[in-house]
Amino acid sequence: MRQIDALKSPRFSQISTFARLPRCSDPSEGAVFVGVPFDDATTYRPGARFGPLGIRDGSRLLRPYNPFLEVYPFDELNACDGGDVDTVPGYTEDTLRATETLMDQVFRVTIPFVAGGDHSITLALLRSAHRAHGRVNLIHFDSHYDFWDSHWGKKYTHGTWLKRAIEEGLVGKVVQVGIRGSVYSHQDKDDGASLGITSLDVRKVKYQYQSVVETLNSLQGKVYISFDIDSVDPAFAPGTGTPEVGGMTSFEALEIIRSLKLDLIGFDVVEVAPPYDVSELTSMLAANLIYEAMSVVAKRRRR
Amino acid sequence: MRQIDALKSPRFSQISTFARLPRCSDPSEGAVFVGVPFDDATTYRPGARFGPLGIRDGSRLLRPYNPFLEVYPFDELNACDGGDVDTVPGYTEDTLRATETLMDQVFRVTIPFVAGGDHSITLALLRSAHRAHGRVNLIHFDSHYDFWDSHWGKKYTHGTWLKRAIEEGLVGKVVQVGIRGSVYSHQDKDDGASLGITSLDVRKVKYQYQSVVETLNSLQGKVYISFDIDSVDPAFAPGTGTPEVGGMTSFEALEIIRSLKLDLIGFDVVEVAPPYDVSELTSMLAANLIYEAMSVVAKRRRR
Amino acid sequence: MRQIDALKSPRFSQISTFARLPRCSDPSEGAVFVGVPFDDATTYRPGARFGPLGIRDGSRLLRPYNPFLEVYPFDELNACDGGDVDTVPGYTEDTLRATETLMDQVFRVTIPFVAGGDHSITLALLRSAHRAHGRVNLIHFDSHYDFWDSHWGKKYTHGTWLKRAIEEGLVGKVVQVGIRGSVYSHQDKDDGASLGITSLDVRKVKYQYQSVVETLNSLQGKVYISFDIDSVDPAFAPGTGTPEVGGMTSFEALEIIRSLKLDLIGFDVVEVAPPYDVSELTSMLAANLIYEAMSVVAKRRRR
Amino acid sequence: MRQIDALKSPRFSQISTFARLPRCSDPSEGAVFVGVPFDDATTYRPGARFGPLGIRDGSRLLRPYNPFLEVYPFDELNACDGGDVDTVPGYTEDTLRATETLMDQVFRVTIPFVAGGDHSITLALLRSAHRAHGRVNLIHFDSHYDFWDSHWGKKYTHGTWLKRAIEEGLVGKVVQVGIRGSVYSHQDKDDGASLGITSLDVRKVKYQYQSVVETLNSLQGKVYISFDIDSVDPAFAPGTGTPEVGGMTSFEALEIIRSLKLDLIGFDVVEVAPPYDVSELTSMLAANLIYEAMSVVAKRRRR
Amino acid sequence: MRQIDALKSPRFSQISTFARLPRCSDPSEGAVFVGVPFDDATTYRPGARFGPLGIRDGSRLLRPYNPFLEVYPFDELNACDGGDVDTVPGYTEDTLRATETLMDQVFRVTIPFVAGGDHSITLALLRSAHRAHGRVNLIHFDSHYDFWDSHWGKKYTHGTWLKRAIEEGLVGKVVQVGIRGSVYSHQDKDDGASLGITSLDVRKVKYQYQSVVETLNSLQGKVYISFDIDSVDPAFAPGTGTPEVGGMTSFEALEIIRSLKLDLIGFDVVEVAPPYDVSELTSMLAANLIYEAMSVVAKRRRR
Amino acid sequence: MRQIDALKSPRFSQISTFARLPRCSDPSEGAVFVGVPFDDATTYRPGARFGPLGIRDGSRLLRPYNPFLEVYPFDELNACDGGDVDTVPGYTEDTLRATETLMDQVFRVTIPFVAGGDHSITLALLRSAHRAHGRVNLIHFDSHYDFWDSHWGKKYTHGTWLKRAIEEGLVGKVVQVGIRGSVYSHQDKDDGASLGITSLDVRKVKYQYQSVVETLNSLQGKVYISFDIDSVDPAFAPGTGTPEVGGMTSFEALEIIRSLKLDLIGFDVVEVAPPYDVSELTSMLAANLIYEAMSVVAKRRRR
Repeated sequence: MRQIDALKSPRFSQISTFARLPRCSDPSEGAVFVGVPFDDATTYRPGARFGPLGIRDGSRLLRPYNPFLEVYPFDELNACDGGDVDTVPGYTEDTLRATETLMDQVFRVTIPFVAGGDHSITLALLRSAHRAHGRVNLIHFDSHYDFWDSHWGKKYTHGTWLKRAIEEGLVGKVVQVGIRGSVYSHQDKDDGASLGITSLDVRKVKYQYQSVVETLNSLQGKVYISFDIDSVDPAFAPGTGTPEVGGMTSFEALEIIRSLKLDLIGFDVVEVAPPYDVSELTSMLAANLIYEAMSVVAKRRRR
Repeated sequence: MRQIDALKSPRFSQISTFARLPRCSDPSEGAVFVGVPFDDATTYRPGARFGPLGIRDGSRLLRPYNPFLEVYPFDELNACDGGDVDTVPGYTEDTLRATETLMDQVFRVTIPFVAGGDHSITLALLRSAHRAHGRVNLIHFDSHYDFWDSHWGKKYTHGTWLKRAIEEGLVGKVVQVGIRGSVYSHQDKDDGASLGITSLDVRKVKYQYQSVVETLNSLQGKVYISFDIDSVDPAFAPGTGTPEVGGMTSFEALEIIRSLKLDLIGFDVVEVAPPYDVSELTSMLAANLIYEAMSVVAKRRRR
Repeated sequence: MRQIDALKSPRFSQISTFARLPRCSDPSEGAVFVGVPFDDATTYRPGARFGPLGIRDGSRLLRPYNPFLEVYPFDELNACDGGDVDTVPGYTEDTLRATETLMDQVFRVTIPFVAGGDHSITLALLRSAHRAHGRVNLIHFDSHYDFWDSHWGKKYTHGTWLKRAIEEGLVGKVVQVGIRGSVYSHQDKDDGASLGITSLDVRKVKYQYQSVVETLNSLQGKVYISFDIDSVDPAFAPGTGTPEVGGMTSFEALEIIRSLKLDLIGFDVVEVAPPYDVSELTSMLAANLIYEAMSVVAKRRRR
Repeated sequence: MRQIDALKSPRFSQISTFARLPRCSDPSEGAVFVGVPFDDATTYRPGARFGPLGIRDGSRLLRPYNPFLEVYPFDELNACDGGDVDTVPGYTEDTLRATETLMDQVFRVTIPFVAGGDHSITLALLRSAHRAHGRVNLIHFDSHYDFWDSHWGKKYTHGTWLKRAIEEGLVGKVVQVGIRGSVYSHQDKDDGASLGITSLDVRKVKYQYQSVVETLNSLQGKVYISFDIDSVDPAFAPGTGTPEVGGMTSFEALEIIRSLKLDLIGFDVVEVAPPYDVSELTSMLAANLIYEAMSVVAKRRRR
Repeated sequence: MRQIDALKSPRFSQISTFARLPRCSDPSEGAVFVGVPFDDATTYRPGARFGPLGIRDGSRLLRPYNPFLEVYPFDELNACDGGDVDTVPGYTEDTLRATETLMDQVFRVTIPFVAGGDHSITLALLRSAHRAHGRVNLIHFDSHYDFWDSHWGKKYTHGTWLKRAIEEGLVGKVVQVGIRGSVYSHQDKDDGASLGITSLDVRKVKYQYQSVVETLNSLQGKVYISFDIDSVDPAFAPGTGTPEVGGMTSFEALEIIRSLKLDLIGFDVVEVAPPYDVSELTSMLAANLIYEAMSVVAKRRRR
Repeated sequence: MRQIDALKSPRFSQISTFARLPRCSDPSEGAVFVGVPFDDATTYRPGARFGPLGIRDGSRLLRPYNPFLEVYPFDELNACDGGDVDTVPGYTEDTLRATETLMDQVFRVTIPFVAGGDHSITLALLRSAHRAHGRVNLIHFDSHYDFWDSHWGKKYTHGTWLKRAIEEGLVGKVVQVGIRGSVYSHQDKDDGASLGITSLDVRKVKYQYQSVVETLNSLQGKVYISFDIDSVDPAFAPGTGTPEVGGMTSFEALEIIRSLKLDLIGFDVVEVAPPYDVSELTSMLAANLIYEAMSVVAKRRRR
């Protein structure tokens, strides 16, 4: 058993690592949890720099066996906690570079499960994924499009990373899930289409759930998933920076992840902002999303 | 563009007006947001006097374009923030008069979108609406009937305004949506029927959603909507005074508003009590409900 | 009318008893609310020792008539507040004994509606129920199985009470509702089956709701219900000790209780931990669950 | 022993009465705790209507013996909890009348220790005190003068009660302690002087503590104390409606009360607003202030 | 009267400006409140970007007359709210430039009272002050030295602004007040001395208060004050980014400001982080510090 | 440098150890931080089981050099984080045994700095200290006496550990600091005297500070310090289980520790209950108290 045994050492004790897993001595030893604590590319509420800490604390109740997917993800993947990237507060581009430096190593040898941090960091993750795997398909859970060209004249923010990723040729097909809320212009939808993005808004999830799952599972080849926690309704995930009411329930979010049968090469959950969280709701949900994603990989591997 | 441009001045900056719209110099210039900060007719938790402030803060993320209704509500309606009524704390009837004085002017020239305040203020709003438009039909979202005759021997409270409105002949057809929770007596239902009220309880919303929307859209002529935020489940709207568990989700609430095709002459959202809110969930939902209601009007106007 | 009249004495006033009912002078006078404030058998977050206080405060909005079930539960059952068991903090087995001493008296003369406390106390309640009624069927709402054999080498915790209850022959058929989340081992499911337990997980509730209700209503004879508030999603019930994301909504939970047509001889709601609650969401839900359970009994009795 | 024995029944258990004292069956049986839950005369943050509930909960840690004053206040005074006045939410003058009706009975037979409610209620208390005792001297702890003539054209608010009390001839000498913060006009000071009020501001408490105590103890004859919790710094008492930074510490407040050697005929603590409290700081302080005041009376009586 | 009249329009109503003052149409019209919402140069907890909003809300209780200093600051200074600088989130140097652009105008015509934002912004303020006034003396309230050379290799952070200000020749004498907490090295003290800084630590404030005031008042010529709210103990000012326990009380902080007799040409209060605030304690303190500073200027001007 | 370098890896990043020190591979390598997460001997609010986690998080701002004591405590002591004792939730005596087993090893080779957990754990710490060092003198910071004989008939609770320690002959002289609040009986004081305990109440700290420090520094020989965080006023330390208003400030507490010149062989800070904390005030204070205690040892060692 990889985790500290909760039947010997209670779950509220011992130094916080993700799911009470061992600290990785070497990323190649197994699937690795990595934190990227950064929030200076945030346009509204900050706090996501405390995301990795919050998610570690929120992961203390995770147990070895996933009964819905019938798999032991931590054992199967030899999972461990790789610590955090040394980010550079206030300097997005430096932080992206620092993230790439570490993640280049990780992607070469294993599958990372990353806790942000704001969504800007996904650009660094996709750059590293691209160097290791070439162009990958992207599933992007979010309430926002995130493909604006710039904010305040700046190219690297949590609302522009997807535009950059496409411009840099990092991704193949892109499917967005959970989109909702007011936007800047009617051109946003057209921009998405012209960028080749498939956007499945929250009504699709609510009214055509099976079709959403099928669209996702139809993706061929290697897939990266970036999960912005604000795709979930803020009642279930209040601890986030740019919440949009009227979103998915946590059950819907977990069920979609559980339903995936894909060749997953990386997963991130971003925009968890613990200063705005209540009773660790958001951190616990983020930890469980990572757990389900690990289970999806573990299940596929076992076969 | 009417709002302060968020791509120049970040959303967390500048003096809080609704949706960062300009302060109205004259209510006739466009659809107007008005606050009625009052909570002394509240029977349980107070705090709704801070509703207008909370909703202004919670509206900072609203952007120009509504992609579900495909309309630019603020531009279409030339929307602005009209400030607050000068209420008289501790004196319900004086506050009603003060509200009527201001709202008489507003209803004559435009459509108000009002942020309460407790539900007692809707009586003043309906009086002004009646003076401007004659008898209007009323859609009333709530978990409570609000047609009790009195509380503690008093006629003007947040639980009696609807009885008064009917007695005063202000409203035509009345349809209630979201009703639930324990009540004082089995006669409450009968009382509603004898007052000519159609009450659609929360089960109707959950199990017969389409029928609810159709009932609402069958209303002919001018319609006023009063939205008590406690019609939504307190998980989505904890910041309110008399919460009832087991309610609508925020998605359901927003979808119903989005589905309306009516001649809307006024809208209020009441009972938002920021001292009980968490992470601005309730304020943000209230702001979005106003946004959707503005969009409904804008869409109809454009055609 | 049994409750303090809210139309004379406002709901925020007077000493807190459950639903503002009278303090029982004698448990035999009617259905009795009893608190068991204890949380030392908790494996993660404590705080359930404040459950009875929280639920009393959260019950202040309950009114006499249940319009969904068309019954006056407090009048029908002559309900009253029996105060709390004198628990022994830090000593689970002493607390179980103290609970049994009081509850033996209660079960002999009436139906108790108990507010925990952590789930360990249900063992004491079932022992008393067994002495009064013989073996009863058990409906167990929870996100966890609770039939582990021991924690930290200890037999009496909030995760082992069901195993003890079965070993001691206290219960007949056992049906679990709402199960989800990661577990220690794949044997947990098998263990449940070999113990004769029917486990209906949260997917059953979400996707086969009618079938869940039918399974429950098929139980013959006397039935005891133990409702762990963590069976509800933490967005609706954040104030609990071992939350699991992705659960039932409060509407679903209330609807299941409302749908029951059973010979109910006792009901408990456990694991309400007010220090983790927000805006009394969890306490209010717990109070309403008790109200619905009282209504189920009242309705059956009236026929 | 009058309180529920905490060594048998833990302090977190049983129905909340003040200090876990018995419910009074008759106010003449001893010194009585009474709540006046009302906040509609509040000019800023509401919430004091939950003051009595909060203070009861915050009083659970009070134990029988006061080691600083060397007295058993509850035993000496035969103290009990008299419940709350049936206030009339939204109607200040009705509430004053209801308060007087109950308090007239209480003042005739014993010494009341009252938990507000906002400060408007002190007018009713002083009216009743006057009917029972004639004109009494008043010690008034506050950060505000409270002798404005009106607010919004209204005579009865939490900022005007002292002006009314003086106009009605209810009080003799008036000494204010803890005054600070910005005011409406330089005439406020002059108004106080012309009303015969001695105002000791917070600097006096900080720099001339002994002189403050001596001024208070020089009051002859019967004395009533009204303690607005906002006289204490909001770091120690955040749960209040119109906080002023830069105030007394809780130690200073408690020490002043402990130092009093006066013929105290009544005591109130007002403006405790639990919705703004954190970790029960304010409620606990209010409960301890009442405890010290009871001890002052008990000590004098014993001699 | 410059403020909205609270005796006509309650303090909880109307759009939030500082102290409910009018929005400046032109900075030259009087002393101006300006917000600089920025927190990307923060090394620990973010949130100061919401400082200006929080301080506006926390200033609603400020009234016209300061009885300690016997002056009407708003009238005397013709004060108004100048809105916020358009900062560039995530880009410190751009934000400094934007701040200078606006503040250059302000310093030329009036005295600014600035609400941060993190402490990095003071560099921009001092640059503008220098352009308008030449080298000014600096009083720096803080628990930290803030003269480190760099963080993470970066020159512009909230811990290095003072080093930059000295390097750029912006300031004359520098006196620090309230310093405490652990530091990186024993050389920090020496560095301060070699930079010509006088550091008065918190013990000086506690044990030699008069001497601290005299040292400050001995400063000749023009003086700028930068007040980091973390100089105050976090019990009084929890809403801040890098709190240090064991600090000044709010009374001590206010008294020092009130005691100043200096030619003040600008004032800022920085590091107010509302997401970490409780019950607006920190925002209210910051608003009052600005009020006292305005009063100091007003009093001097009147003579 | 022992800590993770905050100028390379920001303070909000990386896995939480005390002060970001390395995890001890062997307790003999230096002074060791150890957590004892346990709260089942608590008589009121639980939550201290999360004390070690909270204090680790609250220690992230600690830096290498203590400028008041002019020492580098972590370097001097070669400090590290030893993780937590494997406590047994719900079983006090088992937990004491588990604590002794680990602490026996620690006391033999180094000085432990322990984070509770409730105060019951100090009995285990003193037993281990006694085995390693013989009878030691005890400085006991607290608002409560903690030498009651039993609670609910039980010998091992957080209010009886000191009686046990004296009975077992573990301690020599005992000096208590900060005592206040109501107690069960006037005999408590006499009991203390007859047990040979010197109790310095909070008035002594406030009015005779120097005398308190001298009394403590007059202790000869080896000294153990147990610091109950509730000795500090709850405004500075709200996150605790049995708060008593009117206590020491954090400045006073830190100053007393800084003033000690003693042969310290162990230190604990107990009763930190994060669920009741706000903005980490209590955790940060506890971390700083440990830091000052480490500095006291380091300073003595250096000489």
